[in-house]
Amino acid sequence: MTRMLPARDSTIDLYPTRLDEKRHMFERLDPVVYGHASSGPLAAHELDDYEENGYLFFPGFFTADQLADQVDELHRLRQRDDMKDRDGVVTEPRSSEIRSIFGVHANNALLSRLCRDPKIIGIARQLLGGDVYIHHSRVNYKPGIHGREFYWHSDFETWHAEDGIPRMRAVSCTISLTPNHEFNGPLMVVPGSHRWFVPCLGETPAGHYRESLKHQFIGVPEPDTLSRLVHEGGIRTLTGPVGSVIFFECNVMHGSNSNITPYPRSNVFLVFNSVENTPGEPFAARERRPEWIANRRNHAPVRPI
Amino acid sequence: MTRMLPARDSTIDLYPTRLDEKRHMFERLDPVVYGHASSGPLAAHELDDYEENGYLFFPGFFTADQLADQVDELHRLRQRDDMKDRDGVVTEPRSSEIRSIFGVHANNALLSRLCRDPKIIGIARQLLGGDVYIHHSRVNYKPGIHGREFYWHSDFETWHAEDGIPRMRAVSCTISLTPNHEFNGPLMVVPGSHRWFVPCLGETPAGHYRESLKHQFIGVPEPDTLSRLVHEGGIRTLTGPVGSVIFFECNVMHGSNSNITPYPRSNVFLVFNSVENTPGEPFAARERRPEWIANRRNHAPVRPI
Repeated sequence: MTRMLPARDSTIDLYPTRLDEKRHMFERLDPVVYGHASSGPLAAHELDDYEENGYLFFPGFFTADQLADQVDELHRLRQRDDMKDRDGVVTEPRSSEIRSIFGVHANNALLSRLCRDPKIIGIARQLLGGDVYIHHSRVNYKPGIHGREFYWHSDFETWHAEDGIPRMRAVSCTISLTPNHEFNGPLMVVPGSHRWFVPCLGETPAGHYRESLKHQFIGVPEPDTLSRLVHEGGIRTLTGPVGSVIFFECNVMHGSNSNITPYPRSNVFLVFNSVENTPGEPFAARERRPEWIANRRNHAPVRPI
Repeated sequence: MTRMLPARDSTIDLYPTRLDEKRHMFERLDPVVYGHASSGPLAAHELDDYEENGYLFFPGFFTADQLADQVDELHRLRQRDDMKDRDGVVTEPRSSEIRSIFGVHANNALLSRLCRDPKIIGIARQLLGGDVYIHHSRVNYKPGIHGREFYWHSDFETWHAEDGIPRMRAVSCTISLTPNHEFNGPLMVVPGSHRWFVPCLGETPAGHYRESLKHQFIGVPEPDTLSRLVHEGGIRTLTGPVGSVIFFECNVMHGSNSNITPYPRSNVFLVFNSVENTPGEPFAARERRPEWIANRRNHAPVRPI
């Protein structure tokens, strides 16, 4: 069973990372599931599954029809010439194509509807045990042909180090706007890896977020640690049609291979954090990341439509 | 049906490539299948399949037991300190790990046995219609974690441009020494793409082979051409256990995504060429590639063990 800490003090660094010397991974100090089967849409066996594997995958959670407006919006946004130089718009490392647009839960009427879908919010509330807010949101274009790989990492490691999120009480949610094939760089997860915190080597460079959104070299596990986790849990490749939804625990090890095919892999990506787990000062970085990637101003609970 | 040219003149450039200006793809001028169902191990429906799609995939062609010695040899060779600086040994772009060792049909007793397997040779002879020799062979280590993607290309385009192989009458064969999973960068092919020759843009740089074995920027299709081929034929990902065998036609468009998993994807790779299709001078390069990658000395037909 998971060890629980009695008191809550958001300034104590329970998960030291970005270290000078290698330190072994250790068991997480926080629960995985905070709610109960009676408190939301997920059944007991689904909560058990999430507890054990660190993610839940729902192929075809939405129908393609239900997402038609959002898919149109995706294409419209990419055509707009005024997008590329905005804060919160990230381009591909080897081209000027848009890779991600952040803040869609706040700045885009159509996409924000998905962020407040009653069942999506219900699942997030159930997993995190009560009110949740959005730490960040984005639409990812992930164009094909030159789509780069994204190396293995735990999102929590970054949010803890660079945003000061104190505890593991957050969950990411992706909603596919294009099909995820086995060949266009789908999300890969290491089941069970969320039970271990992997301290990473190396100091956080200034402005690291700009690079880490394109390719990540800091905040990633050493190859032997990754091999141990994979040896234990294997690798699951999450493929499915438009409208598939993945909830993955903030500390599960995940990544994706490159995408040389012409098929983009676009999705809406949401990070739900518990209102009891708001960010303090970064635990392992000299400066805060910008507001568009690390929401510090608005922790009002998300309300479903 | 494929148009046939009456006379054989190996100095005529039927497939111009590495051009200054874009030229559209055009239908191949050579047959795909040169032999008959009665002349080898493949049945008529298998020959039809190859004619249509440009490849044949045999999961578990060999058993893991049958390849045990070769798998041991693979590991032994990697341990040897004297390998890395040899001609014909290529390392990974981002590390000093061995990526490929060339010439194994000639320089390695254990691996050369595979190159002369009676059924393998029988299929190559049947597809190419008579005697065949080995244009090159190699063992590919393809280590995981930092395994780079390999962009779409036709092998024939390179062999024609850089080695002076005049016609499409060659076939590649890979024999897996590790499992090919969907997540460790398996071979992807575009079925039917072998029916089209895609002239490529850009002059061949000096010493291009050294780079092109690590990542290829010259001799690759433009994105819109690739999209047309994929729109027509789709993408097939070839996954299977140790001992799986792929025969792919020299002009089929193929590539592979990166491999960030800890699972290597090792194989023996053989290129069979018809003895009636031997290389002349390069059609679109200033210098010949080295002997270890483009066999010009020994065109004696391969004999099965």
